[in-house]
Amino acid sequence: MPRIQFHQSLAELKDKLLAMAALAQQALDAALDGYYKADATLCHYVYENEPAINSAERELDEMAYDLLAMQQPMAIDLRFILAVIKINSDLERIGDQSVNIARLTEAVIDEPKVDLPVDIVAMGEFSVSMIRMAVQSLLEADAALAERVLMMDDEIDEMNRSAHKALMKVMESNSQAAMQALNALIIARNLERIADHATNIAEDVIFWVRGADVRHNIAAFAE
Amino acid sequence: MPRIQFHQSLAELKDKLLAMAALAQQALDAALDGYYKADATLCHYVYENEPAINSAERELDEMAYDLLAMQQPMAIDLRFILAVIKINSDLERIGDQSVNIARLTEAVIDEPKVDLPVDIVAMGEFSVSMIRMAVQSLLEADAALAERVLMMDDEIDEMNRSAHKALMKVMESNSQAAMQALNALIIARNLERIADHATNIAEDVIFWVRGADVRHNIAAFAE
Repeated sequence: MPRIQFHQSLAELKDKLLAMAALAQQALDAALDGYYKADATLCHYVYENEPAINSAERELDEMAYDLLAMQQPMAIDLRFILAVIKINSDLERIGDQSVNIARLTEAVIDEPKVDLPVDIVAMGEFSVSMIRMAVQSLLEADAALAERVLMMDDEIDEMNRSAHKALMKVMESNSQAAMQALNALIIARNLERIADHATNIAEDVIFWVRGADVRHNIAAFAE
Repeated sequence: MPRIQFHQSLAELKDKLLAMAALAQQALDAALDGYYKADATLCHYVYENEPAINSAERELDEMAYDLLAMQQPMAIDLRFILAVIKINSDLERIGDQSVNIARLTEAVIDEPKVDLPVDIVAMGEFSVSMIRMAVQSLLEADAALAERVLMMDDEIDEMNRSAHKALMKVMESNSQAAMQALNALIIARNLERIADHATNIAEDVIFWVRGADVRHNIAAFAE
């Protein structure tokens, strides 16, 4: 494969990764929308689209493996392909987490609405914006933008911790609302984990662009 | 690097991965022991060993990258190095999950013991045995053994689902035990996710040995 064709293949790999990111983002958007609107159709949309995300992941991985096997890329190209393999797996897990959120939402969809002390909307928007920035940093090879994503992780961890405490109190004092409070608590954890995946993506972008491994240099609550 | 030296490097990479697996398994064993014995010292041991797991992950990743960059390995050697990179990340996450279990255990360590309708011991042993088999399949390049790990995943998913239901009932009916029941519920989820990581490792072993991608062919409850 001539050099120019190899670079076309790398561009194609990047396009496929961005398409994969769009699928994961759509799944999360639908899951969050399903939660806000208590809409079972949106929850079903999330389940039904999971196989497409899984196939996209596999196809992308195979393309990355083939490029590694046939092209013996060096330095920045090698780092890019390795970053693609890792980011791909994080995106697929965002899809899985979105399925969890949709399942938890559907399980309590027919119960009377209770006012819960957790702002799932705010947490959802926060993690969506972390993913969006991480994907943007990938698109533009912008390590500084990726660093901003890393800085955001503490905030969603804190949101999750306060949600946990407040919902715990509801469970102890109001057994009628216990199941809804529990599901909201697990959804908050799922969102915090989605933010962790955005953080992983940002770290992989930094590794690709700068050649430096930034993992574990920033304290993060392990999930 | 001459061929024989390259194969020595691959053997060294495998040794490092097995050492990493041992670290992750020790963390999980200590977290589970901490839970059974309500022992804060064991919980602390888990937190204190997390940085060592993180460094081992980074070191192993760097070695894998260097081999890819300098050796341009082909076919099975390439697949092995890619499998190492993925398995490494799953082992690190098993370490993270063990930290979670230790934190959840410590949070309720001073509360009076309640009898909870969940067999954390059995779930813990089940996931430990899945990890052990996955690591064994790696050590012996045994794809058939790895397939047995995949078969086990449904069972722990089922254990997690019944634990969830039973503990939910406790939370609704006995607000004094709510926090302990909630923590046990989240620990059960953590164990189910640890089993997912064992499944990922087994899939990567199959990919390495057979060159086939088995992901998403077996239905698994997404976490």
